Amino acid sequence: MRYAVLDGGKRLRPLLVLGAAEAVDGNLDAALRAGCAVELIHAYSLVHDDMPCMDNDVLRRGKPTVHVAFGEATALLAGDALQALAFELLAPADAGIPARTQAALCRLLARAAGHSGMAGGQAIDLAAVGKSLTEDELRHMHRLKTGALLQASVMMGAACGEPGARACQGLETYGRALGLAFQVVDDILDVTADSATLGKTAGKDAAQDKPTYVSLLGLDRARAYAGELLEQARAALGTTGLADTRALLALAEMVVHRDN
Amino acid sequence: MRYAVLDGGKRLRPLLVLGAAEAVDGNLDAALRAGCAVELIHAYSLVHDDMPCMDNDVLRRGKPTVHVAFGEATALLAGDALQALAFELLAPADAGIPARTQAALCRLLARAAGHSGMAGGQAIDLAAVGKSLTEDELRHMHRLKTGALLQASVMMGAACGEPGARACQGLETYGRALGLAFQVVDDILDVTADSATLGKTAGKDAAQDKPTYVSLLGLDRARAYAGELLEQARAALGTTGLADTRALLALAEMVVHRDN
Repeated sequence: MRYAVLDGGKRLRPLLVLGAAEAVDGNLDAALRAGCAVELIHAYSLVHDDMPCMDNDVLRRGKPTVHVAFGEATALLAGDALQALAFELLAPADAGIPARTQAALCRLLARAAGHSGMAGGQAIDLAAVGKSLTEDELRHMHRLKTGALLQASVMMGAACGEPGARACQGLETYGRALGLAFQVVDDILDVTADSATLGKTAGKDAAQDKPTYVSLLGLDRARAYAGELLEQARAALGTTGLADTRALLALAEMVVHRDN
Repeated sequence: MRYAVLDGGKRLRPLLVLGAAEAVDGNLDAALRAGCAVELIHAYSLVHDDMPCMDNDVLRRGKPTVHVAFGEATALLAGDALQALAFELLAPADAGIPARTQAALCRLLARAAGHSGMAGGQAIDLAAVGKSLTEDELRHMHRLKTGALLQASVMMGAACGEPGARACQGLETYGRALGLAFQVVDDILDVTADSATLGKTAGKDAAQDKPTYVSLLGLDRARAYAGELLEQARAALGTTGLADTRALLALAEMVVHRDN
């Protein structure tokens, strides 16, 4: 479990939680727990996704994947226990976090991680190998597979405070645009970056004949689309009425301009 | 996910939740959700446990296991999504269940399912294949692997009401004895029953050279131990001061006297 979590990674999801919690002036103890919880879910999904029956990958964050280092059975159990630990962190007995905040955080994370979020998206992804998807189908798959957890990170940060309906709506739109931008850029980097820079195997999508934004739109239009989504995210932050959304804006820029 | 959950199984854990909730006069809507949630965790653990990298089993509840029917990748994802769904059920937005009950249920379930409960016990079990364990080590392994979730079922039922400290303590002791009795009887049935009666492969422990209560104590002493644990469970119910614990007593008797 430690090997899968405590070494490397951009910590994008916790940063989104903290950025949103700051923007709504939320409970920072709750936000720290929420940030850790969402990263644990992300980490478990990578452990399971790398296993032989899924992507069968040997390199992650520049290190051997968990099943290569510890065996498949341990990888399976470590992933399972990381998911449970995420929810354990969100529901502490005596941390001074209101029960309604705890319940809201569990709700947001469970929905984003499960059948109508990340795990559901991965199931669609599995079924799509070797098929051609329309842009709508591809977008739906990514909304679930990576978008749901990224958007949930933003909304979990928001749930640490008491934002009004207008702020919530703006943050939701921001989270959706950012989640999609993340995936478009992931697809671009899979083609343009090398494995050393990525810390994971490059060129994997094409090798597995997976539909991507690059295979669908071509490299130039995919890049333009990522830029459009960044503008959508920026505009959405402007509609929230929140005083300080600079951290969230910087994170959206990082998502689009990153090189790994 | 449906295949893994909706066909067969004794539903022992949901019955324990409902029995305890009834005994403490708890919120029955919360108890129904808690019962479903704990059964989803149990079902996901069976799906993952049956996979080739774990027990590599082909028969469960008289049917092909999930990975045999749907492939390993789908089994992995279905298990992952079942765990998330369990927590989603416990934290509904608008079901009239108090937030503090939701948070308490998430806390109990997450602890029982994770590294210090079920998943941790499975990891110890993995590491113990081919080794000889002392009775203390074996008991510790089972307390985590199967006992934690059974005990949590009882305590989740209790958390649907507002039992006092004395009732809580008695229910905890009851749950611990019942959880251990369940495992002792499981070990006995693995030796004495056939696969058709069990609905799963019999004789598996000996074939895998796993330490069990039967290998440690012999069949007669294992049976006597199960009887002692039943008496402990009965005595613990008597200390709760609760008016009606008949359902819980009947469940403990069922656990010890079952033939599958």
